[in-house]
Amino acid sequence: MNKLSHFDENGQAIMVDVSNKPLTARTAIAEGRIYVNQEIFAAIEKGTSKKGDILGTARLAGIMAAKKTSEIIPLCHPIFISKISISFKLESKTCSVYTSAETKTTGQTGIEMEALHAVTAVLLTIYDMCKAIDHTMKISDIRLIHKTGGKSGTYNIGDK
Amino acid sequence: MNKLSHFDENGQAIMVDVSNKPLTARTAIAEGRIYVNQEIFAAIEKGTSKKGDILGTARLAGIMAAKKTSEIIPLCHPIFISKISISFKLESKTCSVYTSAETKTTGQTGIEMEALHAVTAVLLTIYDMCKAIDHTMKISDIRLIHKTGGKSGTYNIGDK
Amino acid sequence: MNKLSHFDENGQAIMVDVSNKPLTARTAIAEGRIYVNQEIFAAIEKGTSKKGDILGTARLAGIMAAKKTSEIIPLCHPIFISKISISFKLESKTCSVYTSAETKTTGQTGIEMEALHAVTAVLLTIYDMCKAIDHTMKISDIRLIHKTGGKSGTYNIGDK
Amino acid sequence: MNKLSHFDENGQAIMVDVSNKPLTARTAIAEGRIYVNQEIFAAIEKGTSKKGDILGTARLAGIMAAKKTSEIIPLCHPIFISKISISFKLESKTCSVYTSAETKTTGQTGIEMEALHAVTAVLLTIYDMCKAIDHTMKISDIRLIHKTGGKSGTYNIGDK
Amino acid sequence: MNKLSHFDENGQAIMVDVSNKPLTARTAIAEGRIYVNQEIFAAIEKGTSKKGDILGTARLAGIMAAKKTSEIIPLCHPIFISKISISFKLESKTCSVYTSAETKTTGQTGIEMEALHAVTAVLLTIYDMCKAIDHTMKISDIRLIHKTGGKSGTYNIGDK
Amino acid sequence: MNKLSHFDENGQAIMVDVSNKPLTARTAIAEGRIYVNQEIFAAIEKGTSKKGDILGTARLAGIMAAKKTSEIIPLCHPIFISKISISFKLESKTCSVYTSAETKTTGQTGIEMEALHAVTAVLLTIYDMCKAIDHTMKISDIRLIHKTGGKSGTYNIGDK
Repeated sequence: MNKLSHFDENGQAIMVDVSNKPLTARTAIAEGRIYVNQEIFAAIEKGTSKKGDILGTARLAGIMAAKKTSEIIPLCHPIFISKISISFKLESKTCSVYTSAETKTTGQTGIEMEALHAVTAVLLTIYDMCKAIDHTMKISDIRLIHKTGGKSGTYNIGDK
Repeated sequence: MNKLSHFDENGQAIMVDVSNKPLTARTAIAEGRIYVNQEIFAAIEKGTSKKGDILGTARLAGIMAAKKTSEIIPLCHPIFISKISISFKLESKTCSVYTSAETKTTGQTGIEMEALHAVTAVLLTIYDMCKAIDHTMKISDIRLIHKTGGKSGTYNIGDK
Repeated sequence: MNKLSHFDENGQAIMVDVSNKPLTARTAIAEGRIYVNQEIFAAIEKGTSKKGDILGTARLAGIMAAKKTSEIIPLCHPIFISKISISFKLESKTCSVYTSAETKTTGQTGIEMEALHAVTAVLLTIYDMCKAIDHTMKISDIRLIHKTGGKSGTYNIGDK
Repeated sequence: MNKLSHFDENGQAIMVDVSNKPLTARTAIAEGRIYVNQEIFAAIEKGTSKKGDILGTARLAGIMAAKKTSEIIPLCHPIFISKISISFKLESKTCSVYTSAETKTTGQTGIEMEALHAVTAVLLTIYDMCKAIDHTMKISDIRLIHKTGGKSGTYNIGDK
Repeated sequence: MNKLSHFDENGQAIMVDVSNKPLTARTAIAEGRIYVNQEIFAAIEKGTSKKGDILGTARLAGIMAAKKTSEIIPLCHPIFISKISISFKLESKTCSVYTSAETKTTGQTGIEMEALHAVTAVLLTIYDMCKAIDHTMKISDIRLIHKTGGKSGTYNIGDK
Repeated sequence: MNKLSHFDENGQAIMVDVSNKPLTARTAIAEGRIYVNQEIFAAIEKGTSKKGDILGTARLAGIMAAKKTSEIIPLCHPIFISKISISFKLESKTCSVYTSAETKTTGQTGIEMEALHAVTAVLLTIYDMCKAIDHTMKISDIRLIHKTGGKSGTYNIGDK
């Protein structure tokens, strides 16, 4: 049994055939986090409320990156995306920025990679904008937390 | 004092002026990790030695993504890249794949974001290729571990 | 009431959810104009009939740009485009080139931005090809003149 | 004498040979304007100061578009860009948003098209974000107002 | 009668209107070949079985290029691609590598250009990876060998 | 001895380190050919002189594709291109269109792949525009015929 669907029976990479799959509504939510030092945390907090809008820039980076997922991930199908939204939580206790991305499509393949790609672009953009202060930031805990649609159906992290 | 160089004095996002900076040799190394379950770990190990080459695909994704960094990160300068290489370590103890990316340029801006972007593309590609088996993978510990060149000079993680 | 559909209830940019909208046939026509000096006007006229085909190059630029609209406009949905055509009128009285772009799709979102983006790419390309003669050209009067389909239905300039 | 440098002696389109030109510092400033109705003008004004940041989104669109200029304009050389910044003025008298883009490079070709392309992307993004309110917006008055560097030297609008 | 569908009745390039065509299942297979010298042939053979995986790299290049077809071919419609796979045959007698690409979609336009574009990207990538040994390689015999779907129906090379 | 410079000592794909190579002037010329049937040959001939400008469209496709070479060929360095030009010969005897592309740069790596990539984009575009008439066209004889610059110096086909 071949569970790695991105390879054919000879172990060669393919973009898998989804031509016989029905069009179904699909959603995905991914999350991730960047740990920063206190000076950066303060700058992000301040920037968000007043000026130097780091998170606003990162949000757009995430939305635009989701649209480029199939250019970055070699075996991803190009798909129509019907929604992308990005959320943030500033967590002072852990000195980190939490982000999540929600994506939707109606299609023959899932929309998980678009949500995950949006999250990484958001976090890399925060890194880029803050690295003049300090390089020790760490991007972590990127994972899928929810999906619906497709043959494998609904998934919620913690279900298993 | 404005330490967030990606904003002007009014807090507006800019692509910072590097026109007066000298061309210097620059290198960067970034790292990251994806935690997988045992079935996926075994598939990656097997794939690498025989067929279904997951890491080979992920390596190319990382190299190609590094070239697209300034398209994904809004305020990154487009730059010439003179080297990109990707390494892997399979760590059975933690059931994770460790990756690092090394980038080089001679230019007016740093090459850190290219190394970090390569690492995230590598890890997302592994995720994509293995998600048919299990969705609980987690991408973590993405950070810069070394850089040389530029005004801020050499940085090694742990230096601080 | 929130009329700016590109922001959520907290004023954060989103790519709006169109997943519940029906697929409908949509068309759009946009127009624009570039004012040039007499030497350039003569070169364009001559080029079109004989050689140095400025308008032919600009037409292709417009068609190709329409396909890249969702890469340039941050909150635009990527969509299938079923038709793009570009027209020109050389207006000697005003020493200007008039262009219009017509686009079609069957989808969940409109095709207006693709027509407008095609028009700007056409005009910028004319600018680029003629700027060795003179830099005082002016691009103006870019607007939507017609659209059909979608919830807001048909629009014709001057209707209002 | 062939003043249309984008065509060879047979009138065929070429990307002109700049290999013998020296590397020189170059700057460009372009401007443009979008005329909107009063409801949109109020929304932009409000959005800028509080939430629903239309101009912040448009600014990033302009910066990212400048980096894609050689993909959109067929005969443009790909170049390194060392600075991009975008400014706005809200002009209540004419119910319009004025924008200007400043670009810099050190290279063998000019940076004017990048500034002009940034301006059009900014204005199209404003259009996109406000079109749910009203479609009668008009984008106008896009032109180069200043450039330095290169064989043709400094240009200021009005000089001629 | 105008058989060149990419031009309108005035001979102007257009992206043809497919908005009234039904969505149909479509497939295409294209093939091509690169002639190399014996040293390169041996390197490819060896690389494939052990290390320095030239064909694996070329395969991914072909898959990724298929997704970019409408960016490279000016009048191609952007389309959803539901499958891409690449095959190789090493032919020692002619000292050449044979490749074929199979593509599928369900859409209003054909998928032939995606298969042909994949084949050229595969062959160019082999060229790129082997050119340090010898520059006399030749890429040849690129053609469509099979297609199904659309108004013109099934085509097999040799049918005619 | 490792002659396949796109692999490291472990046989892993890398974008080779050119950071220590000097900037040198480099040129390349590549050629290729498409064999068509007589009806297509006549259409191309007619189109070129009057309307339906197939070769003009193909020329622009080639120029624009050259700029995208490092996006299509995985291990190619992104480089500045200082010239691209495309030539055609219509050869009635063989019922084929011959094309050649000339490229120039001053850089640390060669410009051969850009010339070869331009040639394939030119030929694929001709194919695309003529395929409504007949699918039996064949793209062949793509090769490098001349290069200068770099460590390996000048190469002319037939030298060897």
